[in-house]
Amino acid sequence: MNTFGQALRVTTFGESHGEGIGCVIDGLPAGLKIDESFIESMMKRRAPGLNRFSTQRKEADRVQILSGVFQGLSTGTPIGLWIANTSSKSSDYDNIKDIFRPGHADFTYFKKYGLRDYRGGGRSSARESAARVAAGAIAKLLLQEFNIQVRSGIYSIGDVVGSEFDFEYAKNSEIYALDKHKEQAQKALIESAKNAHNSIGGVALIEASDLPPGLGEPLYHKLDGAIAEALMGLNAIKAVEIGDGILSSTQYGSEHNDEMNEQGFKTNHSGGILGGMSNGNTLRVKAHFKPTPSIFLPQESIDVNGVGQVCKIKGRHDPCVAVRGSVVAESMIALVIADMLLLHSTSQLSFLKKVYLGEL
Amino acid sequence: MNTFGQALRVTTFGESHGEGIGCVIDGLPAGLKIDESFIESMMKRRAPGLNRFSTQRKEADRVQILSGVFQGLSTGTPIGLWIANTSSKSSDYDNIKDIFRPGHADFTYFKKYGLRDYRGGGRSSARESAARVAAGAIAKLLLQEFNIQVRSGIYSIGDVVGSEFDFEYAKNSEIYALDKHKEQAQKALIESAKNAHNSIGGVALIEASDLPPGLGEPLYHKLDGAIAEALMGLNAIKAVEIGDGILSSTQYGSEHNDEMNEQGFKTNHSGGILGGMSNGNTLRVKAHFKPTPSIFLPQESIDVNGVGQVCKIKGRHDPCVAVRGSVVAESMIALVIADMLLLHSTSQLSFLKKVYLGEL
Amino acid sequence: MNTFGQALRVTTFGESHGEGIGCVIDGLPAGLKIDESFIESMMKRRAPGLNRFSTQRKEADRVQILSGVFQGLSTGTPIGLWIANTSSKSSDYDNIKDIFRPGHADFTYFKKYGLRDYRGGGRSSARESAARVAAGAIAKLLLQEFNIQVRSGIYSIGDVVGSEFDFEYAKNSEIYALDKHKEQAQKALIESAKNAHNSIGGVALIEASDLPPGLGEPLYHKLDGAIAEALMGLNAIKAVEIGDGILSSTQYGSEHNDEMNEQGFKTNHSGGILGGMSNGNTLRVKAHFKPTPSIFLPQESIDVNGVGQVCKIKGRHDPCVAVRGSVVAESMIALVIADMLLLHSTSQLSFLKKVYLGEL
Amino acid sequence: MNTFGQALRVTTFGESHGEGIGCVIDGLPAGLKIDESFIESMMKRRAPGLNRFSTQRKEADRVQILSGVFQGLSTGTPIGLWIANTSSKSSDYDNIKDIFRPGHADFTYFKKYGLRDYRGGGRSSARESAARVAAGAIAKLLLQEFNIQVRSGIYSIGDVVGSEFDFEYAKNSEIYALDKHKEQAQKALIESAKNAHNSIGGVALIEASDLPPGLGEPLYHKLDGAIAEALMGLNAIKAVEIGDGILSSTQYGSEHNDEMNEQGFKTNHSGGILGGMSNGNTLRVKAHFKPTPSIFLPQESIDVNGVGQVCKIKGRHDPCVAVRGSVVAESMIALVIADMLLLHSTSQLSFLKKVYLGEL
Repeated sequence: MNTFGQALRVTTFGESHGEGIGCVIDGLPAGLKIDESFIESMMKRRAPGLNRFSTQRKEADRVQILSGVFQGLSTGTPIGLWIANTSSKSSDYDNIKDIFRPGHADFTYFKKYGLRDYRGGGRSSARESAARVAAGAIAKLLLQEFNIQVRSGIYSIGDVVGSEFDFEYAKNSEIYALDKHKEQAQKALIESAKNAHNSIGGVALIEASDLPPGLGEPLYHKLDGAIAEALMGLNAIKAVEIGDGILSSTQYGSEHNDEMNEQGFKTNHSGGILGGMSNGNTLRVKAHFKPTPSIFLPQESIDVNGVGQVCKIKGRHDPCVAVRGSVVAESMIALVIADMLLLHSTSQLSFLKKVYLGEL
Repeated sequence: MNTFGQALRVTTFGESHGEGIGCVIDGLPAGLKIDESFIESMMKRRAPGLNRFSTQRKEADRVQILSGVFQGLSTGTPIGLWIANTSSKSSDYDNIKDIFRPGHADFTYFKKYGLRDYRGGGRSSARESAARVAAGAIAKLLLQEFNIQVRSGIYSIGDVVGSEFDFEYAKNSEIYALDKHKEQAQKALIESAKNAHNSIGGVALIEASDLPPGLGEPLYHKLDGAIAEALMGLNAIKAVEIGDGILSSTQYGSEHNDEMNEQGFKTNHSGGILGGMSNGNTLRVKAHFKPTPSIFLPQESIDVNGVGQVCKIKGRHDPCVAVRGSVVAESMIALVIADMLLLHSTSQLSFLKKVYLGEL
Repeated sequence: MNTFGQALRVTTFGESHGEGIGCVIDGLPAGLKIDESFIESMMKRRAPGLNRFSTQRKEADRVQILSGVFQGLSTGTPIGLWIANTSSKSSDYDNIKDIFRPGHADFTYFKKYGLRDYRGGGRSSARESAARVAAGAIAKLLLQEFNIQVRSGIYSIGDVVGSEFDFEYAKNSEIYALDKHKEQAQKALIESAKNAHNSIGGVALIEASDLPPGLGEPLYHKLDGAIAEALMGLNAIKAVEIGDGILSSTQYGSEHNDEMNEQGFKTNHSGGILGGMSNGNTLRVKAHFKPTPSIFLPQESIDVNGVGQVCKIKGRHDPCVAVRGSVVAESMIALVIADMLLLHSTSQLSFLKKVYLGEL
Repeated sequence: MNTFGQALRVTTFGESHGEGIGCVIDGLPAGLKIDESFIESMMKRRAPGLNRFSTQRKEADRVQILSGVFQGLSTGTPIGLWIANTSSKSSDYDNIKDIFRPGHADFTYFKKYGLRDYRGGGRSSARESAARVAAGAIAKLLLQEFNIQVRSGIYSIGDVVGSEFDFEYAKNSEIYALDKHKEQAQKALIESAKNAHNSIGGVALIEASDLPPGLGEPLYHKLDGAIAEALMGLNAIKAVEIGDGILSSTQYGSEHNDEMNEQGFKTNHSGGILGGMSNGNTLRVKAHFKPTPSIFLPQESIDVNGVGQVCKIKGRHDPCVAVRGSVVAESMIALVIADMLLLHSTSQLSFLKKVYLGEL
């Protein structure tokens, strides 16, 4: 179950402290220009070690293309990508190799598989998300051919919530802040958590514009369902909202419904999705990240034999996983939309006639 | 894309105003006692027309078993279920057959498929959830063999939020209220919305207990990801929270992490899921339902030709879709857990040896 | 695992002596005219009881459309089909309810599921193929929109092998014989087997013309692989050949290779498939059916307790399952091609641009 | 569509003249000892350049384990394997970079994807089968835990057909001949084809013993169907037979049916499969390989512009692809059985109780 998507399928492999992280992208149409510098720019946004708001593990995160591209174009065959690990320090984990870290997957992986790769969380490490971003970059290249843009930024850190959402500004913010007036307070909160050997949660906002209406496969691979799975399946995300999200449950129908007129929808409470399909309005999603579970305060835990232990975590960790996580969330949404774009192209007989019979 | 699940697969078909709603359940192990009275009791909980807080469409919702059961036991072959429509009134839709209802899937289905089954929303109607509940009942029968219980109730209606969560009380509440002290206020809110020809949102809480640790398939069919998809894919749900949910984004690591001792987890901020797998603690999920989009107030809209129209909805609709929706959400979570239970049974070589070689 | 196909997915359910046989067709594009009289004509070709070369079980095999069609057109939502059983005689099986019939699935189903539906083979009965033909008929309707024809007939019965392949003639032959000069000898062989309370094998030839080149999904859902699975998965088929088939293993490269010139391929040893994809030449497949396992001669067997027993089969059975089986094989190939047609439509970026951007 | 299997899923990537060939194995249970020397021994059996009956391309075919193994055991996470290309000579293809080679996938890939990787067939090259054998080796390691053996050898070359089937002898034969008395004649036929700049077809026989009865997922992922797909999807295979195979179509029911007594099946016409599931008898499959399409005789063809050309193939090619192909076929069957073994373990409620409740 290491494959994501139906028509555009991404299979990832690799562990935090193994040889590296890889993925295979299957189902990408032939003829897409694979712009390696764009992939690199996406990797850079997720890369660790960029500044003091991130883990100090420094990884080049160079993406090597192993297959599926010839003379700069996708060939329709599977694209293999490989990102070598260059900066893993397994010795950081020696003292807790038998102790389950609170808030981590250690305990559940041990229960699932009956054994443990204790080095940096192994497969469960957020390092795996490097492959997601590399694949997401390719999805974004595909979406660009159809003028679909996916963007993200930080909506809140702890209880410091933004009220302006400037995706252009976010690009150059060290913490991808959407609201420049809140950025300093948000940074301060991260730094204070870090200085207290603690961590803090945050919320990412992701938007996608210019989706053709009708994307999403009812009833069990809907656009909203697929987005929710893609995001909730990311490490640290504990809640997903679409459009008005949790507010919807306190609204009246007359407040929530988006009326239409000849110019389109008058409002966007739905977040661009109706009946599980894109309605042409801006797709709007919020992802709530819990605080990084790796903190440097001593915590009560048990070991693999069930004996109580004090867990003291070393290593290098993000004080706020939402920051770099926002880029991963954006990548996942790009992958979902690309998948839906491929799937939707067979939903009408008239579409197939355009492809095969040249009828327009 | 009308199939849900990986090992336990449910395929549904049928429309609100067609012949009926059906489903095929594939992958259910042989030898399970299929208790039809239990299925009936689950159907009754979701059934329309029970009281004044629900739509007045009355459906017997009798589940006919078409296949896969012999002498009261599942045979391992696909179980076909059929629920005939008996009370559809398509004439209620004549006046809006060319007009898109705000908040509904009408517009997006038309864009997706290029044609429209205007009768009661066709396939997009919440009536399809009858099949989900029938399948969910069978999933619950399977889970009971392993002492896993899934329960649900209403957490809030509009802004009336419960603070006690009594699942036993909820069973007999007309609105499945978890908090008996808030029930009257919650009912009053639904009634006032109904009397104003409007509708109101609400939140369902779903819990599952006694899951063996390790359920969930990393990294792309995690327990939390699958739950999020299952719920967000339900009509009207706009946000899903697991454990502390949206609160997580405002917490520090030291607050959120669940420490362990020799008795188990000391807290349950995670909602029973770590690293996408059950940790043995109670699974806790909240589903936020928007208000029913069908309201009787006139709304601005357009028709299939893009011309502005006033949309006046007739018919019979729930004033608060969260109430009956909570039963559907519970059913979906039962299906997810059952799926994960089957998948998990091949995750260790030692499990297979128990099956094939009788080694314990 | 009761679902067939990737983009066009058919899920079947039901047993020989249960309520009936059903299927759900998912992924069919919206806007296809569903010609019920064509479905009926296909069902008639497979129907039992037509003449003395077939079982005497008479079934109306009326296909009821439960969902997915509105005003004569497919809506893009799943099409539910139902074929009621009207002529099952379970009493025919009373004397062998605990005895495994040689050549049948009785023993293996019992081992797989730990219990037994002894009535007419239950799920393993060839009666299930009624659903395949109904679904295949809809696939053929889709293929006709692209001028693709799929045809079949009997190539040989026992050792009486045809040398002319007249698919038009086969249509009106009682045994679907392709070679009118061999038809009488083939019929005589079936009749003599029947009179000896025995059964006889046979070979069906299936052809498909005017496939666009490029259909088939390398490397693990190739056109030839999918056809082989579809056919070998049919009851009684023990060998599948494509193009020159078994002869290929005795040929030199210079004999087998199909050279090309400006008019196309000069020969068709490949049977229309190269590298797992259609090459535009006629697709040519042979399916080898074993003799019907149900014979009326006494046979040595064991019962569910492993005790030796004599098995005496009653009931009504085809003396040569290849005859009606040829229609099922044709239906399966139609389903495979339709699936591949849908899948292929996303293989080039330029195809998607035609759909979404109207570029030709 | 570069993934094979349902519970044990193998995704391959890479091209003949690219960086290498890789695969990801997903779904393998945790706790399996990964014996690298065994993988190496399987790779050696498929390796090119071993003797004069094989292509002279020499590849070390070293399998690098990228992920999923820790301290010698499978961890339950995906196993990434990588086999670097070390001996590709793309210049061999310069003269035919625009010409379609008869019998090859060149034409169909060009039609499917609209572009061409002309170097050694790119993705369609048999070199991809290196990944299949590496994955198959791991499947064999899993099967060995359950005492299931899969073996293969050459049954015939051209019209020289063996009549003894000695799998032990085949292991050490340069052409994996099963019949030592026919080996010389078979070798002579390969050599004479090679000397005539031609190629020759052949048949591989694959057997698997000690399968538990009940493996195979009816009705659309049967054991025989899955084997047929796995083999027919291999380059050069044009026919697949199970058990008596093509002979079945000339038999009477009384000849073909395998009677049973208290010791088991009296014969094995079925080849170990009834109703699509293993019956406990030896699984017996024949795969018919066409002659290698790459021959050195000039052949008539066309180029990418449709203009007639003479195709003169250079490079290094197997004179008889069946020889090394037999190892690939064996690997694929091991993968199919392993997949079915995993899937079968959820078919009875009692199996799950053994896993979860420790009931035997």
